[in-house]
Amino acid sequence: MSVAKEFEAANANYVASFTKGDLQLPPQRKVAVVACMDARLDPARALGLEEGDAHVICNAGGRASDALRSVIISQQLLGTREIVIVHHTNCGMLTFTEDVIRDKIRTELHQNADHIAFLPFGDLEQSVRDDIRILKDSPLVLDVPITGYVYEVETGKIVQIGENQ
Amino acid sequence: MSVAKEFEAANANYVASFTKGDLQLPPQRKVAVVACMDARLDPARALGLEEGDAHVICNAGGRASDALRSVIISQQLLGTREIVIVHHTNCGMLTFTEDVIRDKIRTELHQNADHIAFLPFGDLEQSVRDDIRILKDSPLVLDVPITGYVYEVETGKIVQIGENQ
Repeated sequence: MSVAKEFEAANANYVASFTKGDLQLPPQRKVAVVACMDARLDPARALGLEEGDAHVICNAGGRASDALRSVIISQQLLGTREIVIVHHTNCGMLTFTEDVIRDKIRTELHQNADHIAFLPFGDLEQSVRDDIRILKDSPLVLDVPITGYVYEVETGKIVQIGENQ
Repeated sequence: MSVAKEFEAANANYVASFTKGDLQLPPQRKVAVVACMDARLDPARALGLEEGDAHVICNAGGRASDALRSVIISQQLLGTREIVIVHHTNCGMLTFTEDVIRDKIRTELHQNADHIAFLPFGDLEQSVRDDIRILKDSPLVLDVPITGYVYEVETGKIVQIGENQ
């Protein structure tokens, strides 16, 4: 059975106890979370989010430059006024370089991916600082509070990186 | 109090009952979900995901072209072999056009954002079909099962769009 079919079965249970059909479009807590797509990090459970609370933007590494389109839409059209960035320990982005993945794609898929920036990083805490800086420096992002964390996949704990910005 | 401080308090509760410190990096169910960042859609709860199960990639609209970097990393480095796309009713992406948001940014931020494709859409079901097609047609994405859904924010239900691909 495909995982999609399993999702449909699980969704039927979700629907059976669903009580949140009247939530508004703009996030109630006016915050956008930018987090890694990692399977072990569930931003809603780890941060105490309920449906309707927050925009959750997830990509490989939780990289800010890749989230910029979504952050701008979140702020300009849906009123969020705070940003929280969450990277995590044991991230896959620490395990490769741009050359490694491009070479793999060239060898295995016979394709050239040199036009894609895959955005791996070598220093986890610095990656959080870098992504705070990217958003702070963008003239397209409002001057709002930005807080960065490392989520520990070993403990479930978020640890703040740097000062509040 | 900032929302970030509220997240820290909620996270302390999460840590107190955390039992999943030994999960592996690759997603156990070998699936990548591409979903909208909308606050009302919690992919984990709506699809029955536990920590460790799946990559969850979220952006404004759940657009495939914006998720491409993450999907490639998910497949090439972390072994996912199925993709599920989830857009939803009452999406903010149905409410504006590229010109509207660019004009707003020009007027309010005094910036030019003409270089950014914000990827709004006018037809919800077609947006799912388009995003399945983008992934199917990309030579950088493996030929894996792709299933598209519309999540109904009114009922919590996922409704499949198109055939299984």
